[in-house]
Amino acid sequence: MTDNATTAETRQDRFDRGMRVLTEIDGEVGQKVIDSLADVSPELGHQVVAWAFGDIYQRPGLPPRDRQLVTLGMLTALGGCEPQLDVHINASLNVGLTPEEIIEALLHSAVYCGMPRALNATAVAKKVFADRGLLPVKTQP
Amino acid sequence: MTDNATTAETRQDRFDRGMRVLTEIDGEVGQKVIDSLADVSPELGHQVVAWAFGDIYQRPGLPPRDRQLVTLGMLTALGGCEPQLDVHINASLNVGLTPEEIIEALLHSAVYCGMPRALNATAVAKKVFADRGLLPVKTQP
Amino acid sequence: MTDNATTAETRQDRFDRGMRVLTEIDGEVGQKVIDSLADVSPELGHQVVAWAFGDIYQRPGLPPRDRQLVTLGMLTALGGCEPQLDVHINASLNVGLTPEEIIEALLHSAVYCGMPRALNATAVAKKVFADRGLLPVKTQP
Amino acid sequence: MTDNATTAETRQDRFDRGMRVLTEIDGEVGQKVIDSLADVSPELGHQVVAWAFGDIYQRPGLPPRDRQLVTLGMLTALGGCEPQLDVHINASLNVGLTPEEIIEALLHSAVYCGMPRALNATAVAKKVFADRGLLPVKTQP
Amino acid sequence: MTDNATTAETRQDRFDRGMRVLTEIDGEVGQKVIDSLADVSPELGHQVVAWAFGDIYQRPGLPPRDRQLVTLGMLTALGGCEPQLDVHINASLNVGLTPEEIIEALLHSAVYCGMPRALNATAVAKKVFADRGLLPVKTQP
Amino acid sequence: MTDNATTAETRQDRFDRGMRVLTEIDGEVGQKVIDSLADVSPELGHQVVAWAFGDIYQRPGLPPRDRQLVTLGMLTALGGCEPQLDVHINASLNVGLTPEEIIEALLHSAVYCGMPRALNATAVAKKVFADRGLLPVKTQP
Repeated sequence: MTDNATTAETRQDRFDRGMRVLTEIDGEVGQKVIDSLADVSPELGHQVVAWAFGDIYQRPGLPPRDRQLVTLGMLTALGGCEPQLDVHINASLNVGLTPEEIIEALLHSAVYCGMPRALNATAVAKKVFADRGLLPVKTQP
Repeated sequence: MTDNATTAETRQDRFDRGMRVLTEIDGEVGQKVIDSLADVSPELGHQVVAWAFGDIYQRPGLPPRDRQLVTLGMLTALGGCEPQLDVHINASLNVGLTPEEIIEALLHSAVYCGMPRALNATAVAKKVFADRGLLPVKTQP
Repeated sequence: MTDNATTAETRQDRFDRGMRVLTEIDGEVGQKVIDSLADVSPELGHQVVAWAFGDIYQRPGLPPRDRQLVTLGMLTALGGCEPQLDVHINASLNVGLTPEEIIEALLHSAVYCGMPRALNATAVAKKVFADRGLLPVKTQP
Repeated sequence: MTDNATTAETRQDRFDRGMRVLTEIDGEVGQKVIDSLADVSPELGHQVVAWAFGDIYQRPGLPPRDRQLVTLGMLTALGGCEPQLDVHINASLNVGLTPEEIIEALLHSAVYCGMPRALNATAVAKKVFADRGLLPVKTQP
Repeated sequence: MTDNATTAETRQDRFDRGMRVLTEIDGEVGQKVIDSLADVSPELGHQVVAWAFGDIYQRPGLPPRDRQLVTLGMLTALGGCEPQLDVHINASLNVGLTPEEIIEALLHSAVYCGMPRALNATAVAKKVFADRGLLPVKTQP
Repeated sequence: MTDNATTAETRQDRFDRGMRVLTEIDGEVGQKVIDSLADVSPELGHQVVAWAFGDIYQRPGLPPRDRQLVTLGMLTALGGCEPQLDVHINASLNVGLTPEEIIEALLHSAVYCGMPRALNATAVAKKVFADRGLLPVKTQP
């Protein structure tokens, strides 16, 4: 962690730090989200990078793979977050979750969120996996 | 109810039992949902059929028409469940709810879920009714 | 329906009409909700009575029992509506739903809303049934 | 306020009163929502106009600009209300909120609703602003 | 705004800046939230202060009164946020919203979130107003 | 996995299988939930055990620790699930998540669900940790 009580950082320093984390996890997809905000809410783009990634994601207390598991659970439960599920199912693959584990996590969500949320999230996963040539997913019965 | 303490069933038995209930209620639409899961999460497809329909829907304590009324309320309230509302507004018609009753249930939802949820669900109903040649719906003022 | 294009009604007329419907469905419980609003938001109390009950509940397109089924589904799905579930599980009993049917509807909600929402709603039902001496509920396995 | 205890109004009077308020705030967009309901749920259209606008929006206790701020917060938090956000971001501009203020409100929503809801609402704002030639939005860093 | 690209700040600087904003808006209540987190999640307490208040609340694009209107809308819509509504109804009074305006905003929420959310938020407002000797609220019919 | 296409199981077999998984994960707490349902909805108790634990939790595709991470995310995002968070924060400790990891997951939730959901879930964690003598939690700044 570099964001500590003794290191002084500018706004730009914090953004740069976050962008390094974002690029590691999301690749180009994260950059596209930021770019799409440039003419409407650059500050929201800044906060996604500098705060969400620079302050929270970069903390060592939970590795990237675990953070994506929590995130898949949250985005599925919230509902209406298909664009974010797209980004984070890609991110989940990037940080080492397998398609089988992602699908198992979304199956697990049926218990807590009900079938509609599980089905909608799985539909996004299908699209992401198709784009990356990962279908069919081989899960055990 | 066949799923009782004394009858032993295989995984396939439970699936078959559920598929009979699903087909009665949803016709072909249910099958399409299952098919779309075949290459990404066949187990989720299995659970929708074997558990949701085979274990829960088939219980005699509430007739299919009443189950769809509860379901319409839930899907409207959850939000972001337009694909499931499409399936279940069709199912509601299949089990004997009239377009007028469905529309009245969605109007009623405005009281509990607010106007946006009621409007979004009604937009799905309009599409389903149009596909089945059921417009205009004749409701009393 | 008395709220039509040709009958002129005062604000008080609409309130009185709603209060008759509210009393039929909720008994004293509805009145308590209205009373609790008297010193903080009498207009919200007015709208619950005059609009929700006077305009919507009183419509003939869906009988009171069916409206409560839809309402149980919505309140379970919304979450955090335990006080309203208390009122409406009582109302459901008042309009002719049996404890077995209410419990079956809440079991059905597990499919669409997940186990936590189903469990929380069932806990409210248990309290209401206990207060009215309706435990144990005899459901079939 | 004309909806008081002493003035008798017909159903049509209430509708007309609401339509005046709706047109002031939403311009033609509100009318389109009503029109789209004509063949499927004219009563929902009536209630949006007569109740939401005729009874609630027209109350003097909170000016139109303040009502839109509350509404932007609610629609963002609910999720899955992109069609309603489109209507109400337009309405917000109509009643005097600037693009900068709208964007600031949506940035503020990240604190309470999380990044996905803030991002989805901002995407709707971008589309509305583009349609009205209001991009780029100039916010301070 | 002091959080700009050219001023370097330590983690403590950002916290101090946020605490000044938090104290202005919430008085002692904010400090209590931070204190309650000290032994379980001091970092969450830090982020509430340094990010939510230091980065977002302090921005000049929307005055504190407007931010509370948006916040009341969001917390009402989210549901299950009674503890936060307590804090923010107090905050709303602190930044100049009157009890009448707060109640009007919560009445307005019935249109978008439905009656249960409006009723639950109003119950919190009643408790806050009672604690501060502000009952009865005088709203126009 | 024993629930396969070739093994025939009775309802009781499936329950027993689920109860073994439930006891491993939740210890006595799970049993208490089942007991509390015995006189109101024994079938819901059966389904929590036989389906949620016997069919879903026991699948080998995601280890118990990972399932709890996903579950913490979902319960935090849903809101109003404090009783279930209590059970599952206990379960998380039982399957090997440390207090520091749980707290980090809840901090992470602020990004996706907003501060109120993160604060409410953290308040439940504080209570669970206090009961188990695990306070203070030592997280890095």
